[in-house]
Amino acid sequence: MDSKTVLEAVQRGHMSIEEAERYFNRKAYEDMGYAKLDTYREIRSGFPEVVYCPNKPDAYLQAIFLRILAEQGEVFGTRATPAQAALVRKVVPEIMYSPVARTLKLEKPNKQREGLIAVCTAGTADVPVAEEAAQTAEFFGAKVERYFDVGVSGLHRLVSKMEALQKANCIVAVAGMEGALASVIGGLVRNPVIAVPTSVGYGASFHGVAALLTMINSCANCVSVVNIDNGYGAGYIATQINRLAVRGSK
Amino acid sequence: MDSKTVLEAVQRGHMSIEEAERYFNRKAYEDMGYAKLDTYREIRSGFPEVVYCPNKPDAYLQAIFLRILAEQGEVFGTRATPAQAALVRKVVPEIMYSPVARTLKLEKPNKQREGLIAVCTAGTADVPVAEEAAQTAEFFGAKVERYFDVGVSGLHRLVSKMEALQKANCIVAVAGMEGALASVIGGLVRNPVIAVPTSVGYGASFHGVAALLTMINSCANCVSVVNIDNGYGAGYIATQINRLAVRGSK
Amino acid sequence: MDSKTVLEAVQRGHMSIEEAERYFNRKAYEDMGYAKLDTYREIRSGFPEVVYCPNKPDAYLQAIFLRILAEQGEVFGTRATPAQAALVRKVVPEIMYSPVARTLKLEKPNKQREGLIAVCTAGTADVPVAEEAAQTAEFFGAKVERYFDVGVSGLHRLVSKMEALQKANCIVAVAGMEGALASVIGGLVRNPVIAVPTSVGYGASFHGVAALLTMINSCANCVSVVNIDNGYGAGYIATQINRLAVRGSK
Amino acid sequence: MDSKTVLEAVQRGHMSIEEAERYFNRKAYEDMGYAKLDTYREIRSGFPEVVYCPNKPDAYLQAIFLRILAEQGEVFGTRATPAQAALVRKVVPEIMYSPVARTLKLEKPNKQREGLIAVCTAGTADVPVAEEAAQTAEFFGAKVERYFDVGVSGLHRLVSKMEALQKANCIVAVAGMEGALASVIGGLVRNPVIAVPTSVGYGASFHGVAALLTMINSCANCVSVVNIDNGYGAGYIATQINRLAVRGSK
Amino acid sequence: MDSKTVLEAVQRGHMSIEEAERYFNRKAYEDMGYAKLDTYREIRSGFPEVVYCPNKPDAYLQAIFLRILAEQGEVFGTRATPAQAALVRKVVPEIMYSPVARTLKLEKPNKQREGLIAVCTAGTADVPVAEEAAQTAEFFGAKVERYFDVGVSGLHRLVSKMEALQKANCIVAVAGMEGALASVIGGLVRNPVIAVPTSVGYGASFHGVAALLTMINSCANCVSVVNIDNGYGAGYIATQINRLAVRGSK
Amino acid sequence: MDSKTVLEAVQRGHMSIEEAERYFNRKAYEDMGYAKLDTYREIRSGFPEVVYCPNKPDAYLQAIFLRILAEQGEVFGTRATPAQAALVRKVVPEIMYSPVARTLKLEKPNKQREGLIAVCTAGTADVPVAEEAAQTAEFFGAKVERYFDVGVSGLHRLVSKMEALQKANCIVAVAGMEGALASVIGGLVRNPVIAVPTSVGYGASFHGVAALLTMINSCANCVSVVNIDNGYGAGYIATQINRLAVRGSK
Amino acid sequence: MDSKTVLEAVQRGHMSIEEAERYFNRKAYEDMGYAKLDTYREIRSGFPEVVYCPNKPDAYLQAIFLRILAEQGEVFGTRATPAQAALVRKVVPEIMYSPVARTLKLEKPNKQREGLIAVCTAGTADVPVAEEAAQTAEFFGAKVERYFDVGVSGLHRLVSKMEALQKANCIVAVAGMEGALASVIGGLVRNPVIAVPTSVGYGASFHGVAALLTMINSCANCVSVVNIDNGYGAGYIATQINRLAVRGSK
Amino acid sequence: MDSKTVLEAVQRGHMSIEEAERYFNRKAYEDMGYAKLDTYREIRSGFPEVVYCPNKPDAYLQAIFLRILAEQGEVFGTRATPAQAALVRKVVPEIMYSPVARTLKLEKPNKQREGLIAVCTAGTADVPVAEEAAQTAEFFGAKVERYFDVGVSGLHRLVSKMEALQKANCIVAVAGMEGALASVIGGLVRNPVIAVPTSVGYGASFHGVAALLTMINSCANCVSVVNIDNGYGAGYIATQINRLAVRGSK
Repeated sequence: MDSKTVLEAVQRGHMSIEEAERYFNRKAYEDMGYAKLDTYREIRSGFPEVVYCPNKPDAYLQAIFLRILAEQGEVFGTRATPAQAALVRKVVPEIMYSPVARTLKLEKPNKQREGLIAVCTAGTADVPVAEEAAQTAEFFGAKVERYFDVGVSGLHRLVSKMEALQKANCIVAVAGMEGALASVIGGLVRNPVIAVPTSVGYGASFHGVAALLTMINSCANCVSVVNIDNGYGAGYIATQINRLAVRGSK
Repeated sequence: MDSKTVLEAVQRGHMSIEEAERYFNRKAYEDMGYAKLDTYREIRSGFPEVVYCPNKPDAYLQAIFLRILAEQGEVFGTRATPAQAALVRKVVPEIMYSPVARTLKLEKPNKQREGLIAVCTAGTADVPVAEEAAQTAEFFGAKVERYFDVGVSGLHRLVSKMEALQKANCIVAVAGMEGALASVIGGLVRNPVIAVPTSVGYGASFHGVAALLTMINSCANCVSVVNIDNGYGAGYIATQINRLAVRGSK
Repeated sequence: MDSKTVLEAVQRGHMSIEEAERYFNRKAYEDMGYAKLDTYREIRSGFPEVVYCPNKPDAYLQAIFLRILAEQGEVFGTRATPAQAALVRKVVPEIMYSPVARTLKLEKPNKQREGLIAVCTAGTADVPVAEEAAQTAEFFGAKVERYFDVGVSGLHRLVSKMEALQKANCIVAVAGMEGALASVIGGLVRNPVIAVPTSVGYGASFHGVAALLTMINSCANCVSVVNIDNGYGAGYIATQINRLAVRGSK
Repeated sequence: MDSKTVLEAVQRGHMSIEEAERYFNRKAYEDMGYAKLDTYREIRSGFPEVVYCPNKPDAYLQAIFLRILAEQGEVFGTRATPAQAALVRKVVPEIMYSPVARTLKLEKPNKQREGLIAVCTAGTADVPVAEEAAQTAEFFGAKVERYFDVGVSGLHRLVSKMEALQKANCIVAVAGMEGALASVIGGLVRNPVIAVPTSVGYGASFHGVAALLTMINSCANCVSVVNIDNGYGAGYIATQINRLAVRGSK
Repeated sequence: MDSKTVLEAVQRGHMSIEEAERYFNRKAYEDMGYAKLDTYREIRSGFPEVVYCPNKPDAYLQAIFLRILAEQGEVFGTRATPAQAALVRKVVPEIMYSPVARTLKLEKPNKQREGLIAVCTAGTADVPVAEEAAQTAEFFGAKVERYFDVGVSGLHRLVSKMEALQKANCIVAVAGMEGALASVIGGLVRNPVIAVPTSVGYGASFHGVAALLTMINSCANCVSVVNIDNGYGAGYIATQINRLAVRGSK
Repeated sequence: MDSKTVLEAVQRGHMSIEEAERYFNRKAYEDMGYAKLDTYREIRSGFPEVVYCPNKPDAYLQAIFLRILAEQGEVFGTRATPAQAALVRKVVPEIMYSPVARTLKLEKPNKQREGLIAVCTAGTADVPVAEEAAQTAEFFGAKVERYFDVGVSGLHRLVSKMEALQKANCIVAVAGMEGALASVIGGLVRNPVIAVPTSVGYGASFHGVAALLTMINSCANCVSVVNIDNGYGAGYIATQINRLAVRGSK
Repeated sequence: MDSKTVLEAVQRGHMSIEEAERYFNRKAYEDMGYAKLDTYREIRSGFPEVVYCPNKPDAYLQAIFLRILAEQGEVFGTRATPAQAALVRKVVPEIMYSPVARTLKLEKPNKQREGLIAVCTAGTADVPVAEEAAQTAEFFGAKVERYFDVGVSGLHRLVSKMEALQKANCIVAVAGMEGALASVIGGLVRNPVIAVPTSVGYGASFHGVAALLTMINSCANCVSVVNIDNGYGAGYIATQINRLAVRGSK
Repeated sequence: MDSKTVLEAVQRGHMSIEEAERYFNRKAYEDMGYAKLDTYREIRSGFPEVVYCPNKPDAYLQAIFLRILAEQGEVFGTRATPAQAALVRKVVPEIMYSPVARTLKLEKPNKQREGLIAVCTAGTADVPVAEEAAQTAEFFGAKVERYFDVGVSGLHRLVSKMEALQKANCIVAVAGMEGALASVIGGLVRNPVIAVPTSVGYGASFHGVAALLTMINSCANCVSVVNIDNGYGAGYIATQINRLAVRGSK
């Protein structure tokens, strides 16, 4: 319903002024305690709402999981501490918690997965961030393959996986320390690479800044970058790209 | 031709050892003066080779434009100075130079453009980077719409273009100073946003670092970032995504 | 009493030399343990003294709350830990502690609130800083309206509050991560916006530096910035502006 | 005219759908070449449009000065180079150029100036930024007093001006190097201080970053900060505050 | 004894080769466990050895306090934790521990103090660093006066102490947050000011970096700076200067 | 065995296609749980595999120590916590743990040590990093001499060791705070100096960044630098150089 | 004359109120054009006024040299460009310009030099800053010895000058690149070392920041630091210390 | 000749006191104008003196080339501008200038080159720094092979050179932008890799800082790093390692 239709309905008396005002105010959310739950997000973005757990008050955390589950039939939370997982399990006992990825997940049964996203890490310490990306993409409906511990200091590990990587619609490259993985992969594939710097490292890695700079300066053209340790964002964007590849525009 | 096929051919005597060695060495480039021209790139990436002009010696610059034109039937160069443009025009007189975008372009006639990419800028000073992105995407075959000077300090300018932006397969958001454009667009669309910080600004903009940090920290999930002023990279990635949306996987 | 008056009083013998010396030494404070309590501050600034609690020794903390309460009839403390709150309650049992804002407050009864200040946050995690600002302004006598969780990635939330924001004499915009809120509000109102970056975020948010840079580089002209997490300072300045709007100069 | 009024007018047939649509689209700008001129800004902000000159193409620069002059009856430009000043003078011969402040100004005759803003600098090298602030405030209708070269290393210079500074509705404190001026003034006045760090200095002043950090960390509560060398922004905000002090809310 | 004297003594047989070798090897230390105790330091610097406590193994800590006490008749340690203080007290029961300054001190009785050093702080939170400086200077034999909580946001506090400060041979200015104290004092005295930035502050104070930059960029010529929180170094240098003022060269 | 040999063997039927494929895939690793153990590393680098302990899951840690011990007959781990040491000792009881260097070591009996590497530190707080370097080099077969606490503020300590240092094939210089040690040593020896900045220091040492910058800017030509606190890397490179000096090329 | 004396004079009628007001206003400067000339500075600091030339307008530059010369009988300017030197020579023909130190100097004849300051540099590129320091100290009446190009990468150069350095009341250590000179000298002398980082270097020297950090983190206790390239400040402070050593307190 | 021998010679009268003093003063240099020429350097380091040209005064530059040529029979200068090259050619007409590497070289005829150093670059823009490294190593007597433009975004270029690289005693890896080359090479060779970050790049490459951080954080153990653009240092260290490999210790 576009604005012309609304105005014509007002003119013709088919719509009250109050209804029209509400339309123009685009009141696309409802208040819930002190946060605003964005229930129209699925319509707008095509993805269901996801719970970012850090610093959520306990009572609110339980309420939001219950509510989203009721509305969406499934629910996914990121960066949940074990204590938060225990709290949520009290009200959603069947939810799964991954201590590595720090995710809380309860999916609709028999969800179909489409397309292909590859998620790679340079080392084993990067796996938590990579798993957050992979599980996000899976929750949003993408098929994911994992290639962990294929960092550039042992190049044969990466090269042996190259044909597999070249089949993915999008590659998520997760690396800390010097973060060179994204550039090397980027030079070998034809689809976009989403680079995720991680805070893995010490000294002059500056908690992920070195890897971030490496990736932002990548000489491979197909590399774009998200925030340090932002596995969720990478999984989200990879799913957007994968969805376009599978379903085409709109 | 995969490695098993090659080895069977060797075993059967259908291929000489020298040919097989060449295969396994993947000699996918040829030397040309002191740089290595990557003539297989089009096959690997699906995109033709593009000339990054800065610091190229004059003689080499002319040679590389001529050679790529001969091989590809078209040629595109970025970040060319007016002096470089004049040099190239001596050997490729019909090439077009955009002093704003600093691009040199000679395209195949009647090239078809597919899909849709939107390129936005916050201000008019961001236009050179945005034009580099737009022309890159056009050279690689994408249809591009431009929305310039729609920065967040005058929000009505952006809001009035929202429906148009929502139709694009990928949005390139180009902004300097505080770089908030990408976040605002990201909250309103369902496809990926490639954010390009620019060096526009002064003082604590630190030549684009402030905008880069804004974009990397975007609260909108669909935003990934390329290097400061990297219009070419943004146009390249947007085209990859657009290509997937139009043609699907492979 | 200006210096000429004092000197004439000395000349005429109406004032002793000791009294005059005291005047010229402007002995506007008295020593109290190892810190100097600024009892003339209310006269100079128009605002009562406020207690900044961090690192205050326990005994001194109790003493200073008691003394200010005795002198001013009310008292307000910021950044108090729960342990400090418990300590102060032992000597001022009726004081209120806000664990979210970390404030300790005992106000004069029936305090009138004047004018209007709007306090906004981008997300729920920014609320503690925003509450510190709001309560500071309220303690200093301003009327405050709160608009929390109206960040730019869901623009409709902010737009629906715009008319309310435009009525405020000063808007305090509190945001972490990429901090774009201040710019967007700044483009829509005609009164000053005090921007408060918060340390909310992770990775390249650098504990609030990214938001600080965004706000300092704001393309909206009416934005000025205080330190990261400095809700108190923002509330203080907003009250100064609100006071000028209500009472005029002097 | 609020949205309810518009809708009622549509309902009653007093307003056409096209007119109402235009209202809701808030089409508050018109395209002019490749930039969007914000002609409704004066209504929204209460201030006329000002031209930020850097990097404006020559032809556009002349056109925009002419157009604003035609619409507003006066025009003000900042950061104009001498070459740009000469260009603009060709089409607006009576415009005044200040080589120190780099401003171009043509004001309505007999403009009344209201209230009081004080503009201070630490040294003489900070004067260009201070003059930009002062002239901006004057163009927007404020009365301005200048106190230049009153830096803290010769404290008597500042102290002797204190009574004058205490009368201003807003003080703009402009300083480079270590930028301590804002804190010292902030401790002596009761109205807001807008601090402007300048790029004056050398070595570890980092082109104004040291002064910016000093000001952001000011122990005086009434100090808020704008970007390095941003005299225009400081003058703008000071005028907003001064306007509130003189005219009150709305 | 210079090298010529030694060599002549060797030539004349007044000194053995072994003694001369020892001279030329300048064997000015002896090994003690895994650290090298610099027992000649008092001769070289004129100051006794001082113990920097952090990270010293427990057994070594006790041994070094005992040994220095035996050799020097007094001992002084800095940055001692309460646990370390308890450890040292087991072997040197009469040693005094200051929990504020984190110093351990046992001085020779009836030590004379000479000259005058002033130690100032901006706030009360800077006192621990200031006390470290003051006690260091006192241990090394200087007379010290303390002026705490005289920061620039309440300028009258500082101005009233000015005559006292002007009598000191050296002033130590200790300040965190914006660190403006050193500049203001520096403009009012004729002897050197040693500035000590402290890590007091939050947000963009960056644990003392803002104050360090302020002080390094001081517009007052007489200010030189030591490391963040380095009270010991400031007390050491102030004593060197005070010693020169009292005793003259050599 | 080079690729020509393999291909000839295939041609002559001496090698199966499967074997040849394996050769060309360079399948130089095997999967083990979620990490890839690089068992060919010793052949490639000439050094046995070493275990970097941080963040290794407990079960995996025990398994990897056992496996490497079984394959190599000895095993070496770095950065092991005391808790990890206890865990590993449960399965390899005879392993030695150094709480200072945080290394776990079980060496082949009667290992010969060759050549000479000198490891120096500026202070005693740098010893843990230096010991990691020294023990790494010893495990890899080098002879090591230690010169600890020879920092530049007591130059005689270093000068007296100069002749010894000049005999080493490689010198590892370990220093925090201002990190000047590497430059001074570098000016006095003829073989390479590997500089290791440490995180020792406080304030503006920025956890080793100051020392890193000092070393990277060294005016001595023979200094190259590894990451902050990277004793292992320095020991590794020093052993490579020492091995070349003892055994020559290949 | 202290304030009590003044007030008694007023009481007794020996001093007019106007005179007393002037006293209390401490009107210690007079306006001159747009800058405030601090003619009482010599009384306050004991040093004559010095002209910092950068960015001084031409006419003002000539006027200020003439005026100071008239008042003080001598004049000294720093950081003068050759063009400024030519300008000043037009009005003060006998003034001397040093193109290396960028100083302009005209001294009183037969000025006596007292005490001893040593000025050292690490390399020849540091000489301009060192000469600024040395000439400043000489202008203020100190005796100066220069030791240039004695950097730590050739330690024998420095060691051979050690006895000479140990005689100075203050040592100025000027160094760029890694800036280790100050620490090494600081470990060998008993009087204060003023360290001046210079912008000499490239790459990660960051225009003097690396040297600044080295010096601020110096492990030698007697080192304090001034701004990058601030030879004037170092010469000023060294003269203050030298003056105390020669003349004692006051 | 050690110190004991000297002292015995003095004791026995075989050596004069003056000769012995000279020995102990280690007067290993001679003054020449305002810089100290280190003529003993060849003995100490095994390498001849090299001229670092930037900022050398013209007359001194010519003198130093002539003098070194006279003493050493050959001469090598780095970072010479074309103007400096022309100046030197006036006095040493047969010297060769490389405008790419900015080196000036006149070598002894028939110099033998020993061992093998490989010098690699990521791109063609890194060649100037690489050539400086290569020519330095050649001047010091090493055999050098160059592998330019083998960056990681086209991995086949690097892989095809791998066997050649594995034969070198030391590899110099020169790269700007993201600097990943060193890590990839480091994972494939058994000898040390000296990494040289270059200032090639734009935006967030920060003039080489991004590449420097990448290399310092390299996950390949054999990588150590020199300053940005420091080709000379890399060539120097590579030659030291190569010399050890060819000639062994001492």
